[in-house]
Amino acid sequence: MIPRYSRPEMVAVWSPETRFRIWFEIEAHAGDAMAELGVIPKENAAAVWKARDATFDVDRIAEIEAVTKHDVIAFLTHLGEIVGEDAARFVHQGMTSSDVLDTCLNVQLTRAADILIADMDALLAALKRRAFEHKETVRIGRSHGIHAEPTTMGLTFARFYAEMDRGRRRLVAAREEIATGAISGAVGTFANVDPRVEEHVCARMGLAPEPISTQVIPRDRHAAFFAALGVVASSVENLATEVRHMQRTEVLEGEEFFSAGQKGSSAMPHKRNPVLSENLTGLARLVRSAVIPAMENVALWHERDISHSSVERVTAPDATVTLDFALARLTQVVDKLVIYPERMQANMDRLGGLAMSQRVLLALTQAGVTRDAAYRMVQRNAMKVWEEGRDFQTELLADDDVVAALGKEAIAAQFDLGYHLKHVDTIFARVFGETGD
Amino acid sequence: MIPRYSRPEMVAVWSPETRFRIWFEIEAHAGDAMAELGVIPKENAAAVWKARDATFDVDRIAEIEAVTKHDVIAFLTHLGEIVGEDAARFVHQGMTSSDVLDTCLNVQLTRAADILIADMDALLAALKRRAFEHKETVRIGRSHGIHAEPTTMGLTFARFYAEMDRGRRRLVAAREEIATGAISGAVGTFANVDPRVEEHVCARMGLAPEPISTQVIPRDRHAAFFAALGVVASSVENLATEVRHMQRTEVLEGEEFFSAGQKGSSAMPHKRNPVLSENLTGLARLVRSAVIPAMENVALWHERDISHSSVERVTAPDATVTLDFALARLTQVVDKLVIYPERMQANMDRLGGLAMSQRVLLALTQAGVTRDAAYRMVQRNAMKVWEEGRDFQTELLADDDVVAALGKEAIAAQFDLGYHLKHVDTIFARVFGETGD
Amino acid sequence: MIPRYSRPEMVAVWSPETRFRIWFEIEAHAGDAMAELGVIPKENAAAVWKARDATFDVDRIAEIEAVTKHDVIAFLTHLGEIVGEDAARFVHQGMTSSDVLDTCLNVQLTRAADILIADMDALLAALKRRAFEHKETVRIGRSHGIHAEPTTMGLTFARFYAEMDRGRRRLVAAREEIATGAISGAVGTFANVDPRVEEHVCARMGLAPEPISTQVIPRDRHAAFFAALGVVASSVENLATEVRHMQRTEVLEGEEFFSAGQKGSSAMPHKRNPVLSENLTGLARLVRSAVIPAMENVALWHERDISHSSVERVTAPDATVTLDFALARLTQVVDKLVIYPERMQANMDRLGGLAMSQRVLLALTQAGVTRDAAYRMVQRNAMKVWEEGRDFQTELLADDDVVAALGKEAIAAQFDLGYHLKHVDTIFARVFGETGD
Amino acid sequence: MIPRYSRPEMVAVWSPETRFRIWFEIEAHAGDAMAELGVIPKENAAAVWKARDATFDVDRIAEIEAVTKHDVIAFLTHLGEIVGEDAARFVHQGMTSSDVLDTCLNVQLTRAADILIADMDALLAALKRRAFEHKETVRIGRSHGIHAEPTTMGLTFARFYAEMDRGRRRLVAAREEIATGAISGAVGTFANVDPRVEEHVCARMGLAPEPISTQVIPRDRHAAFFAALGVVASSVENLATEVRHMQRTEVLEGEEFFSAGQKGSSAMPHKRNPVLSENLTGLARLVRSAVIPAMENVALWHERDISHSSVERVTAPDATVTLDFALARLTQVVDKLVIYPERMQANMDRLGGLAMSQRVLLALTQAGVTRDAAYRMVQRNAMKVWEEGRDFQTELLADDDVVAALGKEAIAAQFDLGYHLKHVDTIFARVFGETGD
Repeated sequence: MIPRYSRPEMVAVWSPETRFRIWFEIEAHAGDAMAELGVIPKENAAAVWKARDATFDVDRIAEIEAVTKHDVIAFLTHLGEIVGEDAARFVHQGMTSSDVLDTCLNVQLTRAADILIADMDALLAALKRRAFEHKETVRIGRSHGIHAEPTTMGLTFARFYAEMDRGRRRLVAAREEIATGAISGAVGTFANVDPRVEEHVCARMGLAPEPISTQVIPRDRHAAFFAALGVVASSVENLATEVRHMQRTEVLEGEEFFSAGQKGSSAMPHKRNPVLSENLTGLARLVRSAVIPAMENVALWHERDISHSSVERVTAPDATVTLDFALARLTQVVDKLVIYPERMQANMDRLGGLAMSQRVLLALTQAGVTRDAAYRMVQRNAMKVWEEGRDFQTELLADDDVVAALGKEAIAAQFDLGYHLKHVDTIFARVFGETGD
Repeated sequence: MIPRYSRPEMVAVWSPETRFRIWFEIEAHAGDAMAELGVIPKENAAAVWKARDATFDVDRIAEIEAVTKHDVIAFLTHLGEIVGEDAARFVHQGMTSSDVLDTCLNVQLTRAADILIADMDALLAALKRRAFEHKETVRIGRSHGIHAEPTTMGLTFARFYAEMDRGRRRLVAAREEIATGAISGAVGTFANVDPRVEEHVCARMGLAPEPISTQVIPRDRHAAFFAALGVVASSVENLATEVRHMQRTEVLEGEEFFSAGQKGSSAMPHKRNPVLSENLTGLARLVRSAVIPAMENVALWHERDISHSSVERVTAPDATVTLDFALARLTQVVDKLVIYPERMQANMDRLGGLAMSQRVLLALTQAGVTRDAAYRMVQRNAMKVWEEGRDFQTELLADDDVVAALGKEAIAAQFDLGYHLKHVDTIFARVFGETGD
Repeated sequence: MIPRYSRPEMVAVWSPETRFRIWFEIEAHAGDAMAELGVIPKENAAAVWKARDATFDVDRIAEIEAVTKHDVIAFLTHLGEIVGEDAARFVHQGMTSSDVLDTCLNVQLTRAADILIADMDALLAALKRRAFEHKETVRIGRSHGIHAEPTTMGLTFARFYAEMDRGRRRLVAAREEIATGAISGAVGTFANVDPRVEEHVCARMGLAPEPISTQVIPRDRHAAFFAALGVVASSVENLATEVRHMQRTEVLEGEEFFSAGQKGSSAMPHKRNPVLSENLTGLARLVRSAVIPAMENVALWHERDISHSSVERVTAPDATVTLDFALARLTQVVDKLVIYPERMQANMDRLGGLAMSQRVLLALTQAGVTRDAAYRMVQRNAMKVWEEGRDFQTELLADDDVVAALGKEAIAAQFDLGYHLKHVDTIFARVFGETGD
Repeated sequence: MIPRYSRPEMVAVWSPETRFRIWFEIEAHAGDAMAELGVIPKENAAAVWKARDATFDVDRIAEIEAVTKHDVIAFLTHLGEIVGEDAARFVHQGMTSSDVLDTCLNVQLTRAADILIADMDALLAALKRRAFEHKETVRIGRSHGIHAEPTTMGLTFARFYAEMDRGRRRLVAAREEIATGAISGAVGTFANVDPRVEEHVCARMGLAPEPISTQVIPRDRHAAFFAALGVVASSVENLATEVRHMQRTEVLEGEEFFSAGQKGSSAMPHKRNPVLSENLTGLARLVRSAVIPAMENVALWHERDISHSSVERVTAPDATVTLDFALARLTQVVDKLVIYPERMQANMDRLGGLAMSQRVLLALTQAGVTRDAAYRMVQRNAMKVWEEGRDFQTELLADDDVVAALGKEAIAAQFDLGYHLKHVDTIFARVFGETGD
């Protein structure tokens, strides 16, 4: 997480202030539940809420931690300084540090997931808008980087919409994976803390109680969470790669928005580089790099070891902050992407109609030519177009075998673009539930 | 995928015979749909089903492919040899190779997922049985490898049950991710093939139609699939690691079943090594290694490039075969794991009652001692037990401050094991929906 | 490792026959050393060599292993069947299975490294040949996919030569990392086997004795080995990506060789796809996937656990076989790559001379214009070329400020291509130690 | 990189101040070389050095970058503010941003490598000291977590010394990989900048000129660099795992140093947890997570794309800062590790002499018993010891077959510990070049 690739809302989720605030809430709610159960005095539980509007002093807590070498104890000590030692006497009663730490982490991850889901909604909205805008903007489809058959720019946006919509569902599932809390004591047996305390705290913090925990919440949940982020990041890379291809000089079917004051290169003033998309490609690698460590964190020893902690201290903020930034940047790229329909047409024309070869092949087969013979007839004409830059339709019309099989009119009919667009509405209806018409 | 770590049912999913069989079914069903739509003659579509019970000649297909360098064309040529060139004339009409390849891959992955889910059911059954069997078998809980407070072996099994149950849900979700097919032509526009063909084929093959595809089914689905496998594999490692710890000489609270003829070591005949669990640890690393390549496969160029193919040819069989083997092996380990309750008791006794320190701390606090003072009182006695091997209860009874605060009877009461087990039923009810009582 | 991506020589390194042959040699050489030291009778040591030309029966060994569940014991039993129980009596004396297994693995990895280094030599030769062939073939250099300044195809080949030459050095270093053997007994203390046995066996097998081993050779060596393979694979992807870009329809500056019988697509007969390079991109992902598991294998418990074994059984053959195949395929791609110099020129011309903008900028600065003013002068003309397809030189000649600063002649002089090629020889001399002139 | 896991010296390498300082030096040295070549006026080159002792204003540069969206241009503008626009006029002449950025990155990585190598030297010194201190401290060797044969704590330290010494060599090689600089212009052709400028700058900055670059220094170098860090991190995990095993309650052969004020747990005051070693395990995962992204960075498009940049902005500081912290922490752990020789003896005694079983097996074989018979004789006695807690030597002496084969005296002789230590000096001489005697 570096400022360059961070947005304030997500950064705030991971600030020490937020963390201490959540710790406080967990402890205070736990106190309420214990008081309700008669385990601690109600007045003590109530007194802790005096810190409700307090600002926890991050530096002071760090100072105490430098001595105790234990962050939760340092926080509790500081809380005692705020509400008074007497009021604080029963705070954390029967609880273990991880009850606070793990529940807090999941509150933070849940909030992070909410932001990411909202990011995704914005991206989906942009993709949908652009899809309908360019629903009929014809463009050559490419496999292996080679021209294949016509498609539309709207279908390109639509498929990324569908992919990101799956990504949204994965984020929702990921959120559910980690929306649990645990107040179950040193080894998860509730020996010193009643399960009803856990239920109360979780309800207040917007979490479900973890059905069975050890000292910690099981890390397969977090592995699933980060894996989902990795998949979404890979989809970000997918869309970014499409933009990078569109913008390359020889293709130039689209361009990232280029603001007036921006300088593309210190040396070549004419350059407009797809730097946002390239940046997104790198950010995707960063988000993905959190996946394997999260999986390595699953096999903790017995009722817990603390090896996961340093990993999560870094990757939990880093992966969520980076993905938040990436989704927002991608939304901006999609939203403002400059599309060049004339260039799309010019690129498609460059191959002299070869994009129709498959269709001619089919027409020949349906006219009774064997597949193999039809293939050879198409191929020999296609090769001339490919190698000598001729026009496919013209060549076919000059090929006696083809004319004999199809007739000149039928040959010309194969070059109608509408043929390729006839199911665009069907696909849009599948993806968006509407065709826009 | 090597025979050593393979089971026949999963291997069969990935055999060339299975693949060609699925290809055939896709082509034949597609023919039916096209005939129904009047695109090809019904008699041709029907004639293709002559190959319904044929055996596709893997070697012959390989021979043809050596010339054409294209596997689907090689298969179609061979299919023509079986059903006759005339019958085969309309096979694959308007389709592209990927329509067949990608739909087939997802059929295979879906079948693989079904096997993995069944594997998981067997593992869950074993874990549940062992959990109830050892529900009250007391054992010291450990954090950081250090004795903490008592728990039970049943809770250990129960938490792995809960984790694997989450794994099962992830496998079900993963299955859903890849249970789609696509017959949408060269760039996904259905230019040469009607969307109803896709619908028919998918329905027959047990898949949903992919809402929007390019030449291929989008690879974010496969990334999510392999990520789920990676998470499950990490849970396998988690359980295996617990067994390895249990079996180490100094702990020996459990042991993998050791058959009569088995030799543990060529050099040390007394050795019984947790080799299955160690092997599972390695297998988990292998399954996880498929995750990142699957994510790298997402960003295919434009309407597809074929870089994903070589990756999937290897990882799709390897990851599913290995995880299938691992889950089956783990089930066997759990099922036959030899548990030593006396040793569990002996290990717990080794620390002279220190496991009760937290409880004593709480009792002191509740008796009115400040948290800090209570902490110091417990710590000074605990340190003597720890360093000089004394008995915690005895030391506490000899500590005037502690006796003054609690009284001798209350001190003794803190050493009752039942205190730690009182919520086992609550947890079992959460995990299994029943307590077994 | 699947046959599709395998070559026989490397596959043979990993065959059971090779493995048993190496095991035999290790045992027989160890016997010689022990006999020399007087530990076992010389006649027994000599008698074992009766199996020198024997064929070890893989099925028979598997049969025995099915009972003993231990591969080395199974092998030794079979060896006894060949040379007679009496002769075999002292075989493996004081040794532990890992002495044989680990030393054998490193012999295999060393042989694999030798093949990879030879592969690399072939690739380097091809790259060098093509570099000199196209040393002066001008081509536009691109950053961010956008035209920058001219370079040559020879420089492109030369930079991949330099990168692969570093890859070769990494392979040599990787070979050195794992070219050690260990015959040090159950925990590496040489309690039951003299260090001189290890020295003798290692010398005969072409290895150095591992200075200090446990039961196994330390796995940081193997991690370094696989990491080197991962870096080389990434360089393979780098070169493959360049080819894929060159071949895309709009660029078409180069093409993979396309044999006569080959069919590019079942649907689009005109297509020539860079499928080899795309395949190499996927293979690179596969080789890289062995890196993290190898690193996870380093932290074995105490004097060894066997978790690394299943990983290596799969990744050692897979990663080396795949990289061998990839290097050979890449050599073929480079060797036969069809280069289109006219197209390179045409692509470069497409931007109307904008590639010279940096040079004009410099000329203006040197003529006394401030950097900022020069930048604006270049940019305003460049933008017209970019947006309206005009010619850069023409625009500059019509810009009074530019003409005032430089004069018409000097403007024209900036468009000389030789300016960009003047240091090609310098670079070739740095890379190849020669300029070819 | 978070403060918790950072040390100031390494953090300083990555500060903006350091970066701008290095950028300045590169520009100023380049100016000198250009002036020497007559390309720019000597007085301008000299004037730039006015900023030699200047403090570059990080905030001011950020302010300018907010407008230009280009960091190098922002810096150059600020430099102009310091030395005067006239003096700055020829700065960066013919250079491209990457000339500065990439050369700077490699200066930083080189300095980082120097710190890591020094860290490693401190770790090696600590390991060596502890190895000689405990050269003869007997301890049971374990394979699979199960007691095997005796070894010494000194050998444990010695093997980690040897592993880290290899790590040091890998760091030195990694440093060499990235100790290159490039001042070669927009596409690496030196069109606008003389190669002698590159030579001069590299010499001054302690780098070698990159033999052939594009706009950037090739990223296979950086991939190799981060891979080396990943291997070293895995060795850190290896050592940390050993400590964690040693400290677990049932083993307790060693303990991390525990300072007086430190609290192990908020709930269990007796606990001393190996939290440093667990932390190191997590840090190792973090460092490793930089490896795959670095490899994914290798395949940049054509003469460069900028996808690597965001990755490196994060991982270059993060991986080096984290590994620096980890090595220093590990040195502290090793240096102060509390060793309990009595506990080592007690643990070994726990198995009643079974550690000698291999030796007895050998003695029987050498006394003429067949291997298979000897194996059975040892195994039947070993099983009684294992299962009933008897003493191995006693059992053997009561086994008529064993006594008949060996005689009572020879049986007793097999239980001499010196037998296992006889080659410790040999091994120490191999590892350290000295035995300490």
